[in-house]
Amino acid sequence: AVRLRVREALGAREAAGEVKIQGWVRSVRSQKEVLFLHINDGSSLESLQVVADPSLQNRDLTFGSAVEVQGKLVKSPHKMQNVELQAGAIRVVGPCDTLSFPLKFKERHPLEYVRQFPHLRCRSNTLGALLRIRSEATAAIHSFFQDNGFVHIHTPIITSNDCEGAGELFQIETSHEAKESAEKNHFFSVPTFLTVSGQLHLEAMAGAFTRVFTFGPTFRAENSQSRRHLAEFYMVEAELSFTESLQDIMQVMEDLFKTATSSVFSKCPRDVELFHKYIAPAQKVINTFFFLFSCRISYNEAVEILKQAPQTFTFKPEWGCDLQTEHEKYLVKHCGEVPVFVINYPYDLKPFYMRDNEDGPQRTVAAVDLLVPGIGELCGGSLREERLPFLESRLQRYGKPAGARRPAWPQGYLDLRKFGSVPHGGFGMGFERYLQYILGVDNMKDVIPFPRFPHSCLL
Amino acid sequence: AVRLRVREALGAREAAGEVKIQGWVRSVRSQKEVLFLHINDGSSLESLQVVADPSLQNRDLTFGSAVEVQGKLVKSPHKMQNVELQAGAIRVVGPCDTLSFPLKFKERHPLEYVRQFPHLRCRSNTLGALLRIRSEATAAIHSFFQDNGFVHIHTPIITSNDCEGAGELFQIETSHEAKESAEKNHFFSVPTFLTVSGQLHLEAMAGAFTRVFTFGPTFRAENSQSRRHLAEFYMVEAELSFTESLQDIMQVMEDLFKTATSSVFSKCPRDVELFHKYIAPAQKVINTFFFLFSCRISYNEAVEILKQAPQTFTFKPEWGCDLQTEHEKYLVKHCGEVPVFVINYPYDLKPFYMRDNEDGPQRTVAAVDLLVPGIGELCGGSLREERLPFLESRLQRYGKPAGARRPAWPQGYLDLRKFGSVPHGGFGMGFERYLQYILGVDNMKDVIPFPRFPHSCLL
Repeated sequence: AVRLRVREALGAREAAGEVKIQGWVRSVRSQKEVLFLHINDGSSLESLQVVADPSLQNRDLTFGSAVEVQGKLVKSPHKMQNVELQAGAIRVVGPCDTLSFPLKFKERHPLEYVRQFPHLRCRSNTLGALLRIRSEATAAIHSFFQDNGFVHIHTPIITSNDCEGAGELFQIETSHEAKESAEKNHFFSVPTFLTVSGQLHLEAMAGAFTRVFTFGPTFRAENSQSRRHLAEFYMVEAELSFTESLQDIMQVMEDLFKTATSSVFSKCPRDVELFHKYIAPAQKVINTFFFLFSCRISYNEAVEILKQAPQTFTFKPEWGCDLQTEHEKYLVKHCGEVPVFVINYPYDLKPFYMRDNEDGPQRTVAAVDLLVPGIGELCGGSLREERLPFLESRLQRYGKPAGARRPAWPQGYLDLRKFGSVPHGGFGMGFERYLQYILGVDNMKDVIPFPRFPHSCLL
Repeated sequence: AVRLRVREALGAREAAGEVKIQGWVRSVRSQKEVLFLHINDGSSLESLQVVADPSLQNRDLTFGSAVEVQGKLVKSPHKMQNVELQAGAIRVVGPCDTLSFPLKFKERHPLEYVRQFPHLRCRSNTLGALLRIRSEATAAIHSFFQDNGFVHIHTPIITSNDCEGAGELFQIETSHEAKESAEKNHFFSVPTFLTVSGQLHLEAMAGAFTRVFTFGPTFRAENSQSRRHLAEFYMVEAELSFTESLQDIMQVMEDLFKTATSSVFSKCPRDVELFHKYIAPAQKVINTFFFLFSCRISYNEAVEILKQAPQTFTFKPEWGCDLQTEHEKYLVKHCGEVPVFVINYPYDLKPFYMRDNEDGPQRTVAAVDLLVPGIGELCGGSLREERLPFLESRLQRYGKPAGARRPAWPQGYLDLRKFGSVPHGGFGMGFERYLQYILGVDNMKDVIPFPRFPHSCLL
């Protein structure tokens, strides 16, 4: 017998002789004349219907058990499916203790409920679909960059880059050190942290390859229980050399989004449909017209729009202040619930490495944030300051602008501006926010296999 | 003028009109009648030759400077290249302070030398080639699994999994905690560590998807200055359900190796050639016949081979002892310098999760290590113990077998055996060792962009 995966069996055109199917039982329906099973092996959302003689029933053949079924694929009389499996033999490979199994037959468990069981929730329809989509999206993002001549760089997870406002960083010690004293005898001789961004490392690489990207875990030790934050999350970051315009950066953001999303939508149509039908509130669902319309406004314009808004904000909009979530929401609404690029932010609001627009008196830097409906900031990017004197004077101002980050390796970073420096820029996209956006998932904890957040690190 | 990358220009068949090339100067040769430049932009090992009127020379046009050249692609009179660029205009975008630039014109810098400059070494031929190969290998590995129906899982970096012999783990604290006391008020409420393997998490996922893989950073806090170890390195790990034979696991290892390697060799022929010609000692170079021959022996046979060896080992070979590097080397030599699979290791030598072969009196587990010439262990895998009673009794023996790991979530791990448990197994492959092997690179620090090891965490 040929061993087939459920996805392969469901796609089979005609009777393919004797086949073997392995998977987990999603339903058992025992009638007088016939026994119906549905078998799922994670290769698709749909299960394969098995039709068997009632004599093949046995008490271990329950919801959740693992089985191996041998038989013939035949054309199904039902409209909903192409084929079904006429079983000749059914073997229970692993029984299921259904009483203590947290997933129950025929129940649609809320996402909050299955979140308690990170090792078992992958066997629910929703998380199964999510993880297949996440896998396809990962592949699509790698392909997009590969196809466009970007070199993939594994930027480091452990870094000696220090930051201002160190409260948001995770520090690393050997277990032994942690027990004794955290200050002396560092494994790496210097204090080390979990990366918050691979940007500075990508910039170094962009000085040799012109187009580079990274796609890996990043970390924040922020004590937030928000639906849009995790302590460990994934970022897609890209850096482009010989780039003098924010327009180029925005174009890559848009192309990445479109290419990845249409790939996911075409490769996992049923999985995506599940989210759009049952999980996402209708108004959040993006369709195939995503990004057909988008809006580009400057920070200056954004502040004017907010000031003229017929509503009161908790934080009064004022030039020089950061855009709050309530402001972002209003801007997206104002533009007609489409993606909104906001460009050219105040100089003193942004990190030291962003390129000075020299446009005083309300001096700005060439930064861009992409805001999307229901999520807020999806991508952030900028041109980087490639001119050594500008960067040096900016670093001397270090400590003044709030939130401005300073590299622990200013020398190395300045070096990059001494040996063939070129105009360059890049951006980062939060991968979990991307998934939340295209699927309409409210809580970030439901789009990552093992969520880490304050007071929770299960498994 | 059409903007072309060097790789595209070199591949152009005929005069393509006016083009623009951007990159870094790899050589300047000024003759009376003509000025020759070589421009590299990281898209290929080869640089593009530029031919210009000497009047276009200027003092900023030096080795290492960044330039933009506009002109016509014409057929080159030289055998070594297809086309060259007849420059109409040359603009120095960023000059290079050649005196303090650590890379020098015409010098072949040793790998140890450029290692001191992690932010600049990507501009050397060797590291440039290495990073392009690493990028292609990454893509090839993702494609292999994707094409074979594996679901990609981002296994967590931060984990509460504890291990025996905690000295080899990195522990995580918020910076604030590290300064005060490492013991109280953990961010996650429990002690957390950097992952040493995604296996246990993959096993959970294999209970829903039958085939899963992960490819990400893993960590060891071992105080080793070895050429074959790093504190942060990348692992490819795969897990397969409904697998009852080590043979299936070995087959995936072999297919992965073959597919990834032939993809890299065919996509980066010149980059690979650089390593095989100039970096690798001839005897280590693997060619297109890799894995045409390989050898499979049991641990029992291995010990017999070692006992009968006409040489003395520092560690006397004895049934029940781990194979040392000297033993691995001998076995590979004994088999004719081909990849060697060693299977079925002693029960007490291996972690708790490996499947009991029940073959006393010299009881073994279904484990496999793949040893390769010049490297030693490239992959390690096993069938996992899917039978609840076996696993429970094994966990009770915890603490006795040296090196046996115990999950901090024994309940979750045991749960996986209660709800439709199936025979399964998997393996891990060290990605840096893989690159060392196919390229013949002696030191692991030279196959990763930013190496982390004791007393060193640059950038």
